[in-house]
Amino acid sequence: MDTKIILSEKELPEAWFNIQPFLPKPLKLPLHPQTKEPIKPEDLLPIFPKALIEQEVSQEPYIPIPEPVREVYRLWRPTPLRRAYRLEKALGTPARIYYKDESVSPPGSHKPNTAVAQAYYNKVEGVERLATETGAGQWGSALSFACKLFGLRCTVYMVKVSYEQKPYRKVLMGIWGGEVFPSPSERTNFGRQVLKENPDSPGTLGIAISEAIEDAATHEDTNYALGSVLNHVLLHQSIIGLEAKKQMKLVEDYPDVIVGCVGGGSNFAGLAFPFAKDKLEGKKDPEIIAVEPASCPTLTKGLYRYDYADTARMTPLIYMYTLGHTFVPPGIHAGGLRYHGDAPLLCALVEEGVIKARAYTQNPVFEAAVLFAQTEGIVPAPETAHAIKAGIDEALKCKETGQEKAILIGFSGHGHFDLAAYENYLQGKLTDYEYPEEKIKEALKDLPQIP
Amino acid sequence: MDTKIILSEKELPEAWFNIQPFLPKPLKLPLHPQTKEPIKPEDLLPIFPKALIEQEVSQEPYIPIPEPVREVYRLWRPTPLRRAYRLEKALGTPARIYYKDESVSPPGSHKPNTAVAQAYYNKVEGVERLATETGAGQWGSALSFACKLFGLRCTVYMVKVSYEQKPYRKVLMGIWGGEVFPSPSERTNFGRQVLKENPDSPGTLGIAISEAIEDAATHEDTNYALGSVLNHVLLHQSIIGLEAKKQMKLVEDYPDVIVGCVGGGSNFAGLAFPFAKDKLEGKKDPEIIAVEPASCPTLTKGLYRYDYADTARMTPLIYMYTLGHTFVPPGIHAGGLRYHGDAPLLCALVEEGVIKARAYTQNPVFEAAVLFAQTEGIVPAPETAHAIKAGIDEALKCKETGQEKAILIGFSGHGHFDLAAYENYLQGKLTDYEYPEEKIKEALKDLPQIP
Repeated sequence: MDTKIILSEKELPEAWFNIQPFLPKPLKLPLHPQTKEPIKPEDLLPIFPKALIEQEVSQEPYIPIPEPVREVYRLWRPTPLRRAYRLEKALGTPARIYYKDESVSPPGSHKPNTAVAQAYYNKVEGVERLATETGAGQWGSALSFACKLFGLRCTVYMVKVSYEQKPYRKVLMGIWGGEVFPSPSERTNFGRQVLKENPDSPGTLGIAISEAIEDAATHEDTNYALGSVLNHVLLHQSIIGLEAKKQMKLVEDYPDVIVGCVGGGSNFAGLAFPFAKDKLEGKKDPEIIAVEPASCPTLTKGLYRYDYADTARMTPLIYMYTLGHTFVPPGIHAGGLRYHGDAPLLCALVEEGVIKARAYTQNPVFEAAVLFAQTEGIVPAPETAHAIKAGIDEALKCKETGQEKAILIGFSGHGHFDLAAYENYLQGKLTDYEYPEEKIKEALKDLPQIP
Repeated sequence: MDTKIILSEKELPEAWFNIQPFLPKPLKLPLHPQTKEPIKPEDLLPIFPKALIEQEVSQEPYIPIPEPVREVYRLWRPTPLRRAYRLEKALGTPARIYYKDESVSPPGSHKPNTAVAQAYYNKVEGVERLATETGAGQWGSALSFACKLFGLRCTVYMVKVSYEQKPYRKVLMGIWGGEVFPSPSERTNFGRQVLKENPDSPGTLGIAISEAIEDAATHEDTNYALGSVLNHVLLHQSIIGLEAKKQMKLVEDYPDVIVGCVGGGSNFAGLAFPFAKDKLEGKKDPEIIAVEPASCPTLTKGLYRYDYADTARMTPLIYMYTLGHTFVPPGIHAGGLRYHGDAPLLCALVEEGVIKARAYTQNPVFEAAVLFAQTEGIVPAPETAHAIKAGIDEALKCKETGQEKAILIGFSGHGHFDLAAYENYLQGKLTDYEYPEEKIKEALKDLPQIP
């Protein structure tokens, strides 16, 4: 069998997959942050285009991918499904390990799958600029790239501490024409307010979200774009799993185990949901494992409740697993996995037992990443390395039991812009922090009380 | 037509292409640095494996690629040939622009094509460690990667100023198990001598070469590996052009113009030589253009003469275009293009008029790179951007004349580790330095006098 299982551009899926109609129970609606009443779709019109709001609540199982979006996808899609022969050999496992490689996109991750779609729908509805937030810069660079291709301007509020410590992502956004501001900034009321209280604020993702939403809400020509959590984002990411299913079929295989890393949940859901459909329909029974950092154990130690999506309590209340919106994640290197909540669609399937969750600390995760790089070549992003660690653990279980399982790993991105994290790992500077139970309990006391 | 022209792994070439038997005149032999007598193949045995020495002088047109090398190649090869539809549209050109994308290898460039072959042949002959030099780190990371896959140790002498200023490439080498030392180092006689004279020496590629060769020559279990210039290196890189030819044929096209960037000449030759064969045999007449920086204009302003390959005059004398071994290139960002000489095989074809040469300064090159990134997505390495600039210029000529030429660009690597260079460009900090004629004349006075 080939090392790379490649689909031709003709086989690029023509529709995204929407898991909503297959859920055992419908999702609980988001609530207005003040009134605590369910949000109406039209409430979102000041910041989102109509098409995306419709996708957010759609019960259609498949939604056609517009041709201009498919045309951009073809720059790097279909992405390869790779068979990790060398990793298998190094582990001495009878398991077949596959990984779906989203690192081949120009920004180096799965993020442009939704960035391109969001830029397109906004362009079609006459929007001229998108505002967004970014932490480490993955999402900001993907949206800058997408906006440039569709002739939109892009404004990125980048958490100030990252803006100062990670200059290269900022350069990447600049190459693609994005304008990047350190957040808190003087450009918004909320930013100015934060700066007044604390001129040296290093910023948080919550503050940056609030600034981007304010920018979008207060400018007629500008909308807001979010890189994870929301239903329409997970919908766009389903292209990953739809392709992977075709590719597994090409080699007459089907995954017994599917693993992916979870920050907000979009890359994980993108890979796993098309397979979860088979499970929900009783056709197949893959084990589906969501992997998160032990320092931010949303799915493994959080509560399934209504909570705010941001620290400033400006966003709607979302029903999800949460560590509490006041949760302050420690500074681990997998910056993309430091969110206190998770995508409602993913949380619903975890609650139903369709998807399992697992957490790892940093050093074993980087150890897995280095083994992967030394066998398969590609250096994984620290986020992606969480999925690899779980995949390796599953393969080692097979070695013990002799089971010849097929393991499918979501390879969400490369680590080319994360080499400082590897440097710290190689120098033995990483700590294996597990978020303490008592502190979690304390943060969960702040959850809003919804009757 | 698809955006990506993909070959299956079955179509991976089974032999490399050797241009030596097709040359109008045979190459002039390298000379011993002291005696000035032609080097005998066996003189190289202390630092190179027998198989590579044989390839260096082989007159066979095709040399089989060993299966273990092909197996590693399959991790990322065949590489895609991409049609730059979006760039064509942005330029408004009737030309068809293709680029052969070597950036998809794990180290991100064409370098592993030869690193893997060199590691393999050394392993087979019982060598346990390879020593090499690296400037910016492209070659050092490719060789570390290759050595890890074949179970060899790898020692890299990295020019000290790069070691200190470019920590991330060093980390990349570390992930793949390479041990990296700043050069000049205390590990070699030559390094100690340099440090004694100048404890603060920032190092040069010449010094690093000398240290790596000394390390290899003085350790029984250790050989030396070079990343460009030599005939066997160009041989291994021919896989690029062999694949590209198959891919052009798949879409029933043939390049009218082929452009590539030249540092030592290996990526350029790898792409161009399989097409140059057609030209030498009178079957086709593509225009083949080697692109170099105006600050290091070896082919455009150098002399075709015997010269040393290093500043320390320790290497054999090579007949090539040269700016003189005392030439000190200015600190441009395309670090891989700062060599005073070029590969003898390439120089011979430039001298015969089969290949043309062209030079550009930095700002127009980065301007082309940014346009490329904003249309095709991928951010090119600064070296690669030289080829893109030439490709764009050729496409713009077609716009003027209305000619529908097929232009093939060698996309040698991505710029993920060169974002500091882009930052300087975006901030307007780059100078357009052309190496002055008088200074070139002066440096050329130091050429060794060979009767």
